[in-house]
Amino acid sequence: MSKLERYLSVRELSEKICEPLATEDFGMQPYVYGSPPKWHLAHTSWFFETFILKENLPDYKIFDKRFPFFFNSYYQTMGERQQRDRRGWLTRPYVDEIMAYRAHVDYHMRELISNNPSEQIRSLIEIGLHHEQQHQELLLTDIKLGLSVQPFDPVYSKTPLIPDGKAIINEEREWIEIHAGMYPIGHDGEGFAFDNEYARHQVYLNRFKIASTPVTTGEFIEFIEAGGYSDFNFWHDEGWAWVQDEKVKLPMYWKVEDSGYTHFTLAGRKPILGNEVMQHLSFYEASAFAAWKGRRLPTEFEWEVASDNFSWGSVWEWTNSAYLAYPGYKKPPGAVGEYNGKFMVNQMVLRGSSIATSPNHARKTYRNFFHAPLRWQYSGLRLASDT
Amino acid sequence: MSKLERYLSVRELSEKICEPLATEDFGMQPYVYGSPPKWHLAHTSWFFETFILKENLPDYKIFDKRFPFFFNSYYQTMGERQQRDRRGWLTRPYVDEIMAYRAHVDYHMRELISNNPSEQIRSLIEIGLHHEQQHQELLLTDIKLGLSVQPFDPVYSKTPLIPDGKAIINEEREWIEIHAGMYPIGHDGEGFAFDNEYARHQVYLNRFKIASTPVTTGEFIEFIEAGGYSDFNFWHDEGWAWVQDEKVKLPMYWKVEDSGYTHFTLAGRKPILGNEVMQHLSFYEASAFAAWKGRRLPTEFEWEVASDNFSWGSVWEWTNSAYLAYPGYKKPPGAVGEYNGKFMVNQMVLRGSSIATSPNHARKTYRNFFHAPLRWQYSGLRLASDT
Amino acid sequence: MSKLERYLSVRELSEKICEPLATEDFGMQPYVYGSPPKWHLAHTSWFFETFILKENLPDYKIFDKRFPFFFNSYYQTMGERQQRDRRGWLTRPYVDEIMAYRAHVDYHMRELISNNPSEQIRSLIEIGLHHEQQHQELLLTDIKLGLSVQPFDPVYSKTPLIPDGKAIINEEREWIEIHAGMYPIGHDGEGFAFDNEYARHQVYLNRFKIASTPVTTGEFIEFIEAGGYSDFNFWHDEGWAWVQDEKVKLPMYWKVEDSGYTHFTLAGRKPILGNEVMQHLSFYEASAFAAWKGRRLPTEFEWEVASDNFSWGSVWEWTNSAYLAYPGYKKPPGAVGEYNGKFMVNQMVLRGSSIATSPNHARKTYRNFFHAPLRWQYSGLRLASDT
Amino acid sequence: MSKLERYLSVRELSEKICEPLATEDFGMQPYVYGSPPKWHLAHTSWFFETFILKENLPDYKIFDKRFPFFFNSYYQTMGERQQRDRRGWLTRPYVDEIMAYRAHVDYHMRELISNNPSEQIRSLIEIGLHHEQQHQELLLTDIKLGLSVQPFDPVYSKTPLIPDGKAIINEEREWIEIHAGMYPIGHDGEGFAFDNEYARHQVYLNRFKIASTPVTTGEFIEFIEAGGYSDFNFWHDEGWAWVQDEKVKLPMYWKVEDSGYTHFTLAGRKPILGNEVMQHLSFYEASAFAAWKGRRLPTEFEWEVASDNFSWGSVWEWTNSAYLAYPGYKKPPGAVGEYNGKFMVNQMVLRGSSIATSPNHARKTYRNFFHAPLRWQYSGLRLASDT
Repeated sequence: MSKLERYLSVRELSEKICEPLATEDFGMQPYVYGSPPKWHLAHTSWFFETFILKENLPDYKIFDKRFPFFFNSYYQTMGERQQRDRRGWLTRPYVDEIMAYRAHVDYHMRELISNNPSEQIRSLIEIGLHHEQQHQELLLTDIKLGLSVQPFDPVYSKTPLIPDGKAIINEEREWIEIHAGMYPIGHDGEGFAFDNEYARHQVYLNRFKIASTPVTTGEFIEFIEAGGYSDFNFWHDEGWAWVQDEKVKLPMYWKVEDSGYTHFTLAGRKPILGNEVMQHLSFYEASAFAAWKGRRLPTEFEWEVASDNFSWGSVWEWTNSAYLAYPGYKKPPGAVGEYNGKFMVNQMVLRGSSIATSPNHARKTYRNFFHAPLRWQYSGLRLASDT
Repeated sequence: MSKLERYLSVRELSEKICEPLATEDFGMQPYVYGSPPKWHLAHTSWFFETFILKENLPDYKIFDKRFPFFFNSYYQTMGERQQRDRRGWLTRPYVDEIMAYRAHVDYHMRELISNNPSEQIRSLIEIGLHHEQQHQELLLTDIKLGLSVQPFDPVYSKTPLIPDGKAIINEEREWIEIHAGMYPIGHDGEGFAFDNEYARHQVYLNRFKIASTPVTTGEFIEFIEAGGYSDFNFWHDEGWAWVQDEKVKLPMYWKVEDSGYTHFTLAGRKPILGNEVMQHLSFYEASAFAAWKGRRLPTEFEWEVASDNFSWGSVWEWTNSAYLAYPGYKKPPGAVGEYNGKFMVNQMVLRGSSIATSPNHARKTYRNFFHAPLRWQYSGLRLASDT
Repeated sequence: MSKLERYLSVRELSEKICEPLATEDFGMQPYVYGSPPKWHLAHTSWFFETFILKENLPDYKIFDKRFPFFFNSYYQTMGERQQRDRRGWLTRPYVDEIMAYRAHVDYHMRELISNNPSEQIRSLIEIGLHHEQQHQELLLTDIKLGLSVQPFDPVYSKTPLIPDGKAIINEEREWIEIHAGMYPIGHDGEGFAFDNEYARHQVYLNRFKIASTPVTTGEFIEFIEAGGYSDFNFWHDEGWAWVQDEKVKLPMYWKVEDSGYTHFTLAGRKPILGNEVMQHLSFYEASAFAAWKGRRLPTEFEWEVASDNFSWGSVWEWTNSAYLAYPGYKKPPGAVGEYNGKFMVNQMVLRGSSIATSPNHARKTYRNFFHAPLRWQYSGLRLASDT
Repeated sequence: MSKLERYLSVRELSEKICEPLATEDFGMQPYVYGSPPKWHLAHTSWFFETFILKENLPDYKIFDKRFPFFFNSYYQTMGERQQRDRRGWLTRPYVDEIMAYRAHVDYHMRELISNNPSEQIRSLIEIGLHHEQQHQELLLTDIKLGLSVQPFDPVYSKTPLIPDGKAIINEEREWIEIHAGMYPIGHDGEGFAFDNEYARHQVYLNRFKIASTPVTTGEFIEFIEAGGYSDFNFWHDEGWAWVQDEKVKLPMYWKVEDSGYTHFTLAGRKPILGNEVMQHLSFYEASAFAAWKGRRLPTEFEWEVASDNFSWGSVWEWTNSAYLAYPGYKKPPGAVGEYNGKFMVNQMVLRGSSIATSPNHARKTYRNFFHAPLRWQYSGLRLASDT
């Protein structure tokens, strides 16, 4: 696939994700941690315009000089911007204006890419595409979130792009044993990676075991029915406060109905069968479940080392590692330096990828991260233990 | 005008108010005290459907059995409903579905009205129309509010339906003197009135004076420039806390720009000339202004008694009366009893009407009411004094 | 009683109220609407020092130049002060320093009073004494509040100064009828009164009936057991929100125990017998109770006019009048003007007095006022109706 | 020192710390993260009573059966308890009752210790003593906090037990280089350690450099004056939000006065000279300072490995390590298991000890931990870098 083909196919996917939406749906932002779909569509275009076209395409005129204010996410370096929790207040620009913005950016990107750009520009384009792929996953999870707060469980699509709630585990679980030793951690430089994966370094690990399969809904139902949500012993102190303050009794999107457990999916509300991969857990829940099982979460290093030995990719997996800099990590200069480094406190690392992750966007060194109570992502867990 | 003509003309106006909006604009609800435009359009239709069609039109089928959950405002009697502060979360039903709902209701209302309905039904229809007229004013003020929080001051219409910021006072102010005595207060029974205006009763008033004109922007600028917002002496204790907590330094929608004072209007941001009627004041500001002038707000009784002696109607006028039951007030039974009585605590009365009030919806006995800090309505003041 | 005797007896009572307290108890402030006992003791002394001694006693030296910062309550005119919700943070000045402050002020007040002060000074002293009497009632209710949040229901005194929970109604209730007509309202100038009672004026009242006795605990238990706290029909919209947000199911200080209803009193937790005067109600509860009874609260004008016809004084009685200026009310100049006027918004008037009101501090024109949800005062109600 | 001598000397120190306090001071709790001094005195006694005397001294009667409710900190295993943020509401039990409680516990502990207790009991006693030593440091920092919110900068003692603000650095800073390699981390089993230090394990470290001295006030003043608090580039995203929400412009307890920088200390407010060890920093500030210097914080592993090469002990040093379980960490069963493990999320590790740490309570493997924004502990930093 040429760079141009790759560019166009990534860009197209974002719009395809939004195809089932009505104009009204593009503006929804029920919680501050999500963003309206139209914002994602515009923000990813702003990224290409700001970091690539403006700098590298002679005579490029920005589409609308007000758009940077609307669609800068958090780059202090790039100036003032709309307050994050008020993105849902924006009715303007309209959806068709944003579509025009995308077309404008694509037109000029096509020109730029066709003119044999320098290696440095190609590398920026690659960042822009990975950035858009990250937002494609957020698009899906934010759409799910926005629809879920509507009464009467609306359906995004009877046949959604991704198999939401349909990732099934049918194999027997095995326990993979990894022996103690020194292991390299971090990206080896082949192919794309974000700055936070670099500074490949050695880590010494004790012997450990890790499950060949992620936890399923059936297993989690056992936890629920054993009173897992009401026994403080399994929870972090903070997790226990979260359970009580938020009155958490079930995983996100779940209900108990007369017919049994159901969950809200992009295809509407569906019964839970028990063999689905468990998704939409907070770190607290993942950790409490592991404690109840007498196991633990793996560290991100254990996960990376063992990952060739099991299949992953149906759900992001919470690890017991905090999101911190690797030894030797260097924050890049300028706006790109705001991409990762400034978030390295009070978040936990998730490894793998999920059903919502865009094609070619997964790799075993990828470090995803979220705050411990958040669970609107496709986040589950895999058990580990010392012996 | 026949009842049918009146019905159709009121209903048409609601849609005319929304004409300049794009689909995206119908969903905006930046603050809990406002509602999305599409919600107003549907809620007023729900009112006719619920209180009139369902009860009185044989074989009437409700349009969609989910709509009552969406569009009941606060009638506990009428069952569960969408949480008020989450009306803006609703992307469904879509705008065109709501328009179809309106058409459906209108179709059947037309049938009902054409069939010579009973006096009791005619009276319910009249309540429904006045209810819709109330929402027409809210539609305008909520649209203004929703647009005002967008960056770059969008324009609702270059020639909006109402002369926002263009109500001008050019006459000299006179002081009208009303002598002491017993006066009748409340509606006399001719024409429509809400329950809270009834129980006409006698009130004894001391002699007082009242201004022939409301306060203008020019006068309010004097207050601002004399330091009115920073001298506690003019403010209620609660008002002073409001000024400090909210860092209030100007009336709502105002800015100081290099060129002078401007305000956001439905026609965009405009310079303030000084002879506009002062609008968008909180009770606290109205009261502080009066204190600074060495005057006071009139009571609602003084206002009503004197109202034949001055012209009013450009702006709602804060009074120094709390919204309480008139002597002899009876809360009507059933859902209609929730219309007024349950709000009779901690709100202040405004009298008159505004540029946004619908035609034929104003009368001198009308009791409007809002919480003291709110100012997104067209609310100003008229000065009074004892001597 | 000479002025000096009166001065000394009022001052002594404040200390007597605090006699059962240990040093630790003097600092308690669990809620922002209460103040620590030691703060009341010092604040009332600051009032005499600031408004009388400093101005009128030649060569008077203020006790400690830091005390005005600590003990000014809300007089913006008198400069900076400790934030109200942080009075409980103050461990300094110590209790014995405050007692020394009181002694110092008393010593010099004795000197001033003995030297035949002017009428104007005598009148200021009278304000100071009434001010201290107001704080004596607050001392009692704040002590009760502070003790009530301790575990294990501590006892202030087995024989407290006031008959807390022991005001008993044994008479049959009669309905007093007052005929329609013009009535004078407000203080007639004989004896002491606060500024808010002045501007005696005429009010026209419709015929009404008012109960000869206040509501009892037994009657309120009927309301509770009839589901009064769970039927929205009886409540103001705001009151209903209060009931739900605060999960209110019982009057303040009440519990349901195996043995029946009990309430926390200054003498410890006690069973409720049913004939006690109902106390510690919010305006919302008083109003809901009246609605449930098919009656209403009287207005403050009705109460004042009828008050010679019934006995009152065991409990403050909520009226359905908002706390607003009387016609002709003039806010006095200077700090004294901050005493009443600036609170005239969003509070409801209570009339009468309670078991905690200091001797000689009650009169039928007295206008007490609190916010609708507050109920740590001795506040109950008396029923009225139109016919 | 015999076990009994050690017991008595630790217990005595807690009371010695409180010697300068008046009765009123024992109850102060201005912020939820601190506790009242009297609570510390009682809670540490409750620890001995609950975990040692009750279980191991035949016929021991608990001092007061209500005390466990008052003085259990967070042990869910041990039953209901006073809500943490309401410890300051407690006026009861009185200070002299708490002193009697301490005497009672000491009397029986003396008996127990004198009777040649088992190794297991001796080990529990040791935990109790280390627990009390932890609270001694908190006593000092909570007293400082409680006094600091009083107006007029009260003085705890002109000659406080600890050299608050007087830890001085006069040596030249050197950069200690540690070569890459495998290092053992965690407690080696000699002497006392908490559960979180165990599971000694290997860690591979890259080469790094670490400063021989902690950062001083003079260096931090340079950061302030270079605009460090107003340049987002140096801050974590969360830290930057903290700076803006809390309007942080200076380290805790600092002021800028005409004479220069001052800070509040246990000996009153004092000028800052520049060579004091920097204390009372949040993790955010420590991290921003390091970024501004072009350096970084060490990890807790780097710190431990290098610690024999520099002197430490004047201030807790923030590391860039999150507080997580060591590989192989086992949460002990029962209440002791609540001591550490449940806090292992969203906190950062501090290493070393401070001027407020009790004698014999410091060791290089000690893992202290706090939330990133907290700064009322004696917390500073030491710089590190990769090369």
